[in-house]
Amino acid sequence: MSDKASIGVTGLAVMGRNLARNLARHGHTVALHNRSEQRTRDLVERFGAEGTFVPTYSARDFVAALERPRKLVIMVKAGAPTDAVIEEFAPLLDEGDIIVDAGNAHFADTRRREAELRDRGLHFVGTGVSGGEEGALHGPSIMPGGSPESYDTLGPLLEDIAAKVDGTPCCAHIGPDGAGHFVKMVHNGIEYADMQLIAESFDLLRGALGLEPARIAEVFRTWNTGRLESYLIEITAEVLAHTDAATGTPFVDVVADQAEQKGTGRWTVQVGLDLGVPITGIAEATFARSLSGHTELRSAARGLAGPTRAPLTGAAAERFADDVEQALYASKVVAYAQGFNQIQAGSAEFGWDIDLGAVAAIWRGGCIIRARFLDDIRAAFRAEPDLPTLLTSGEFRGAVEDAQDAWRSVLSTAVRLGIPTPGFSTALAYYDALRAERLPAALVQGQRDYFGAHTYRRVDREGTFHTEWATEGRPEQLA
Amino acid sequence: MSDKASIGVTGLAVMGRNLARNLARHGHTVALHNRSEQRTRDLVERFGAEGTFVPTYSARDFVAALERPRKLVIMVKAGAPTDAVIEEFAPLLDEGDIIVDAGNAHFADTRRREAELRDRGLHFVGTGVSGGEEGALHGPSIMPGGSPESYDTLGPLLEDIAAKVDGTPCCAHIGPDGAGHFVKMVHNGIEYADMQLIAESFDLLRGALGLEPARIAEVFRTWNTGRLESYLIEITAEVLAHTDAATGTPFVDVVADQAEQKGTGRWTVQVGLDLGVPITGIAEATFARSLSGHTELRSAARGLAGPTRAPLTGAAAERFADDVEQALYASKVVAYAQGFNQIQAGSAEFGWDIDLGAVAAIWRGGCIIRARFLDDIRAAFRAEPDLPTLLTSGEFRGAVEDAQDAWRSVLSTAVRLGIPTPGFSTALAYYDALRAERLPAALVQGQRDYFGAHTYRRVDREGTFHTEWATEGRPEQLA
Repeated sequence: MSDKASIGVTGLAVMGRNLARNLARHGHTVALHNRSEQRTRDLVERFGAEGTFVPTYSARDFVAALERPRKLVIMVKAGAPTDAVIEEFAPLLDEGDIIVDAGNAHFADTRRREAELRDRGLHFVGTGVSGGEEGALHGPSIMPGGSPESYDTLGPLLEDIAAKVDGTPCCAHIGPDGAGHFVKMVHNGIEYADMQLIAESFDLLRGALGLEPARIAEVFRTWNTGRLESYLIEITAEVLAHTDAATGTPFVDVVADQAEQKGTGRWTVQVGLDLGVPITGIAEATFARSLSGHTELRSAARGLAGPTRAPLTGAAAERFADDVEQALYASKVVAYAQGFNQIQAGSAEFGWDIDLGAVAAIWRGGCIIRARFLDDIRAAFRAEPDLPTLLTSGEFRGAVEDAQDAWRSVLSTAVRLGIPTPGFSTALAYYDALRAERLPAALVQGQRDYFGAHTYRRVDREGTFHTEWATEGRPEQLA
Repeated sequence: MSDKASIGVTGLAVMGRNLARNLARHGHTVALHNRSEQRTRDLVERFGAEGTFVPTYSARDFVAALERPRKLVIMVKAGAPTDAVIEEFAPLLDEGDIIVDAGNAHFADTRRREAELRDRGLHFVGTGVSGGEEGALHGPSIMPGGSPESYDTLGPLLEDIAAKVDGTPCCAHIGPDGAGHFVKMVHNGIEYADMQLIAESFDLLRGALGLEPARIAEVFRTWNTGRLESYLIEITAEVLAHTDAATGTPFVDVVADQAEQKGTGRWTVQVGLDLGVPITGIAEATFARSLSGHTELRSAARGLAGPTRAPLTGAAAERFADDVEQALYASKVVAYAQGFNQIQAGSAEFGWDIDLGAVAAIWRGGCIIRARFLDDIRAAFRAEPDLPTLLTSGEFRGAVEDAQDAWRSVLSTAVRLGIPTPGFSTALAYYDALRAERLPAALVQGQRDYFGAHTYRRVDREGTFHTEWATEGRPEQLA
């Protein structure tokens, strides 16, 4: 045994601290470093008994404390702070050492950094870590990119501290350079979509049935025993059941209804646009958060007329909660199908060769979207690795087809009662567009050829065509 | 009179050529320049009789042919080619000369170029030009950015060649640096949304009523005599009425239903995300085009079950076309409201002080979205320059409120029949969300505080709060 540390963590705010503790708890000797010394001292003082820590107070000492090849985990703010820390340490390292960025970097930055450090003989591993503070301490889902060689050395440590599902660690080598951060980005985008769909379900149950939050919490608890079983449904029930101690009213009613965001949903949509992947569920969820925050606009618009909301009654009411469950399930399948298509597209674009089944597998535990559902997705991609969309895999296909009557019925109710369901609506529109024999995109192409001579293709012959609209001429073949 | 040219155009592909001809036709002496000489010779040979052209065959001669302050219009590909041409000419110019980029540059590039050239004593005017090739020749809508001083010199020439509505030129100084290209970008985004809504209307009329394209063309022709009167509705009727000469079948049925795009819709959505403006109509339209182009995915999904489509009959059928008109109108108001909000947000972000009424005014003619409707928008912003959203302006508010029953009915029909209406659906969801008393964003904030300690605000007191969920503790005020 070396008396050096097997890994080091620099940046000891709560995420970095919890990762370091998790590593130490698993028997690894962990070197510690932080810009301000106090955080390092605090960690050792409060949690030193949990394992073997090597506190260091200079970059040079930190590097010297690590066994070769060195493994340094950087856990600082994305952007310029990350670049600064890399530049602080890289000159002190030797060929084959590994810098791990466990923050929420944009995958394009990770690609740039990986290329630069590779030129300098170093491995750079951009790593997605999901699960928040608690996950970092007790077992997150970990999505490392970077070189396969770096994973040989680093992987066993990460797998040690990752969440486990059926004994399998929620950590796998995603692919080269920025693949890990890309997949983490899409994870967060899917998380936005999933949360929006859950929020719409709550709004529907309340608006159409007039149920109180505590009663809706029970509905979610029931759902959590079935195919929707997931961390997000579980905590939704907790949040909805919670009574605000200060006022004695339902907690959800005292919270300001302006959702905030830290930017990864936005990144996901922007990248989806660049890749040409329709990820409408994530887009609507991201925009729904923006909209909620426009308080002046909402105040101005609050008086706009809507239909008179009459809660459902009778048979329609009795069926409604179950219908919403089906609509939520079907919409969720669409949102995940879109997200996995984005990973496919990114993998193809950047040559990452990502195993979608492995991604689903490591999302089964540790991360925010962990769910029974992810095991079904894992199985679907195991059975058919090049599945064009989750919607056509055996199990999901049947479930969504079975759910569609309820899905359509719920949306009719939402539209009639004036309950906004951008997530449910875009999911159904996607489903109906994807399966359409013909789309009115043909008319769009005709318009584009008319006003901009942008040309069109035909269904009955190869080539590019343009019609001389002014003279009603024959289509002219251009290529 | 100087015997020098009052303006020059470099880049004589069809857009540049037509702008040069338009200037010459209006009595301006136009210097010509192109990388390959042949295009310059061709223009003079074919169109020399239309006005006074000064062909030149070197950058030096081109610059020498221009009266001071020089006005050079660059009409080349966006991106690196534009930078290359700027670098070719800028060193030959004198303080106060004006470079006009009339191509489709990203406004961020325009901001960069404007700042660089300003440092070198030159004016750089990024200018949106809409109307396609025909517009460039006969009168486009022109959206120049850049300094107010540059507009003093350049504006009169641009106003000469712009489209006119009631004698008013469709050209106005939009604001400093990138404001012109920003507004042109949003114009194109709105164009995507408008085309998508029209396409959905066609699809609904066909799917729900079983009408043939020629019959639907008549419906659009009727609509074009009312409040929807616009260039896009007019050409839609033309396209739908057109019979393919090669097959004798409706033109729209022989066109491949994969809509293409050149990127400005994508830019608009990406910028909207950065600005935090929910422009869901443009986003759905952009994604609808992407989706249509995923032919393999669509083939795989084509067998997914949908409802049995039964065309409407009886009273529902008789009312349906009128209902779709109302749904289209209301959805269009939403899409434009979102677009104008994006311009407001861009103006605030970059300090442009854009006059939204003036933007609407110059879009009334020349450009692709020209419409009677834009005169109503102009009037709305004239009456209330700081209007928070078009939806609350007198006329639009009443019209949308009146339309909402039909709008909701059409969407119920679409959902029931399985006709994809992502544009209509997101418009209604936006309307219902904007006017909502409470949004389920409160639940999203609760979830975020639960899993990530992201904190929340309250409706009943100032500050930032966090609940210790694990211990069901009281809310803790953090700030």
